[in-house]
Amino acid sequence: MTTVEIFSQGEELVTGQTLDTNAGWLSAKLVQMGFTVSRHTTVGDKLDDLVSLLREVASRADCCICTGGLGPTIDDLTAEAVAIAFDRPLEFDEQAYQQISAFFSNRERPMPKSNRKQALLPQGSKRLDNDWGTAPGFALHYGRCWFAFVPGVPFEMKQLYQERIQPHLLANYSVKPWQLITIKTIGIGESDIQQRLESLKLPEQVQLSFRTSSVENQTKLLFPPEFSRSELETISKQVAKLIGDPVFTIEGIDENSGDLITILSHLLTTRKLTLAVAETISQGQIASHCIGENWLIESLFCRDTLQLARKLDLPNMELAVEEEQRAQLAITFARQLKTMSGADIGLAQLYFQDQTSTTLLYTALVSATDVKSQLLKISGPIRRQQNRATLHALDYVRRFVKDN
Amino acid sequence: MTTVEIFSQGEELVTGQTLDTNAGWLSAKLVQMGFTVSRHTTVGDKLDDLVSLLREVASRADCCICTGGLGPTIDDLTAEAVAIAFDRPLEFDEQAYQQISAFFSNRERPMPKSNRKQALLPQGSKRLDNDWGTAPGFALHYGRCWFAFVPGVPFEMKQLYQERIQPHLLANYSVKPWQLITIKTIGIGESDIQQRLESLKLPEQVQLSFRTSSVENQTKLLFPPEFSRSELETISKQVAKLIGDPVFTIEGIDENSGDLITILSHLLTTRKLTLAVAETISQGQIASHCIGENWLIESLFCRDTLQLARKLDLPNMELAVEEEQRAQLAITFARQLKTMSGADIGLAQLYFQDQTSTTLLYTALVSATDVKSQLLKISGPIRRQQNRATLHALDYVRRFVKDN
Repeated sequence: MTTVEIFSQGEELVTGQTLDTNAGWLSAKLVQMGFTVSRHTTVGDKLDDLVSLLREVASRADCCICTGGLGPTIDDLTAEAVAIAFDRPLEFDEQAYQQISAFFSNRERPMPKSNRKQALLPQGSKRLDNDWGTAPGFALHYGRCWFAFVPGVPFEMKQLYQERIQPHLLANYSVKPWQLITIKTIGIGESDIQQRLESLKLPEQVQLSFRTSSVENQTKLLFPPEFSRSELETISKQVAKLIGDPVFTIEGIDENSGDLITILSHLLTTRKLTLAVAETISQGQIASHCIGENWLIESLFCRDTLQLARKLDLPNMELAVEEEQRAQLAITFARQLKTMSGADIGLAQLYFQDQTSTTLLYTALVSATDVKSQLLKISGPIRRQQNRATLHALDYVRRFVKDN
Repeated sequence: MTTVEIFSQGEELVTGQTLDTNAGWLSAKLVQMGFTVSRHTTVGDKLDDLVSLLREVASRADCCICTGGLGPTIDDLTAEAVAIAFDRPLEFDEQAYQQISAFFSNRERPMPKSNRKQALLPQGSKRLDNDWGTAPGFALHYGRCWFAFVPGVPFEMKQLYQERIQPHLLANYSVKPWQLITIKTIGIGESDIQQRLESLKLPEQVQLSFRTSSVENQTKLLFPPEFSRSELETISKQVAKLIGDPVFTIEGIDENSGDLITILSHLLTTRKLTLAVAETISQGQIASHCIGENWLIESLFCRDTLQLARKLDLPNMELAVEEEQRAQLAITFARQLKTMSGADIGLAQLYFQDQTSTTLLYTALVSATDVKSQLLKISGPIRRQQNRATLHALDYVRRFVKDN
């Protein structure tokens, strides 16, 4: 087991002014490569804290990746802390200086004097050339631990990791990347997924985890490096089958993967279909989510459903009270929208609030050959209802098109 | 100087599956109260790591707030680690057990056996009642350090911090809160703000910082506890004046604060005005952002501008090529929308792409007494253009209503 620690330096991080996204990004990369990430630590710009942290890490970990503190200002103290902690006095690196100067001259900007500091590297360290910014990174061994230091700017950090650090790790540590499969779902919570997977018996080496976001739920399967590809596919498809209808893609196996819009877009574009939507509780969010997609040609939102009916040339509408009538009403809206807009598929969502705090949401789809409608009960804060209605509508279109 | 450390426990955090937002949130709160946050540490679910980390922190910090690891499953080890690290054997807490049982019976769900574990608290610790979830928190002293342990679910963590931890800190530490003023802007980047503030001379104790998000930019001024209120107001207003038009609120001074929608909503509600929008490049996002606000009564989006014209009963429209004509066209759309929808204010956005990659965006507003239009040039990825168009439209309405 090769353990890695991540160390982030920055007063803006430790005081909560900026969210540290570097540590999580690096960890995910390292875990997938087969390393064990044991700890993240963040400290500010106090030299003593930095020095003692570096010594601590050297006594615990096999590798450490450090971000931040390589800038030109006086509160960028990482190189100085390394010099003290590991007794490696700073030395002027001529080549680093040339690169920093070139960065400025290429942009026709004068180099501030303070940037010279970035060319001072700890004695005996290896420079990590930074082609994406001013501060070079550097790497060195102390005891059993290999340290890599890179800037905290996420873009530069990612480039330096991929081009300088990852190759070193692959060449020097006998780790093998794990195989990650991500089953993506809409419209089902983590606890419901877990319940559907209750009967599942996974091989002991396979790690199952879940991740929830506002746009999808992910069920992740992490397989050891040597795990057979065919068995991996069988297991992943079995898991997807147990979860059932809410699955919209199996990333790592399916040819087309991505988020729901990407999958939906592939389906609609392949079949040359266009869509128009009448929005109520989603209030423009269905259209908004489809930004950049030419197949969405129109969206209408009215706060008042009778006003929406008038827009659709349905002047004498009355709001239904029976479930069957309400579903029929949504279908009428969808059909009329399809006709008026010239789209291949018309989608309408109507909602009714009953005496409890539950919203009854009717989604209807009409195409040249098919008509479908579905009732969904939702509740909670209005933003959450908006989000659920949007995702439900888009996923309903996906299933509608896929089944036709 | 009272130092605080934040300690997050969770395998999903240390492996990068989930981003830790708790540490940053807590830090910002603590810094504002006058504490010095010296370190964040994240570890996974290895008991030895947890035990040694707790002992380390006890030797360094005055306070420590720990999140996560209080769940019912076997990889939730925080209480056990505390028991070992500080020699405080776990004891069954009858009242905690009653609260956990009540959580389930209130929701008419059977309590899983595993949840009994959450009622085991380290000997001599003080229970922090959790009215927002199942796991109670707890607090204890070890050496000079006061430790508070709370669940990692952000909502529960925040409630427990505000209701249980903050009152303890205020009562037991002689820290004084700093005074935070946040100047919020739309439509101006951080570097432009910095340029407008170049001539500014702030007193040395006042800290200036910037924060960028997808919905607003924030210029933050942090004043020491004893800083005079009247001088604070003078300085803050001077900074806002230097930034100019893009400022939509000064949080900490203005009576009504919040995000742009909150400010806009207050204006429209006070003046009893309603709005209808014709969306193009924002593609439903203007309406979507106004979720929960009754003053937005209608939104139309059409991919094709001529189709949008037909929807607005403007059948013989031609797309203009001159700047003046295009602005006039947007005004015609806004006026027609106002009439057809019955709203007090009609807003229309039309866009034209020239041969470069720049988008020319015309925003027009029409009310009973006023007509205005503005040209904005935007570029970049389509999602960024969508976002800029949306925020610009909403901010333009705010300025339109405010000036009338």
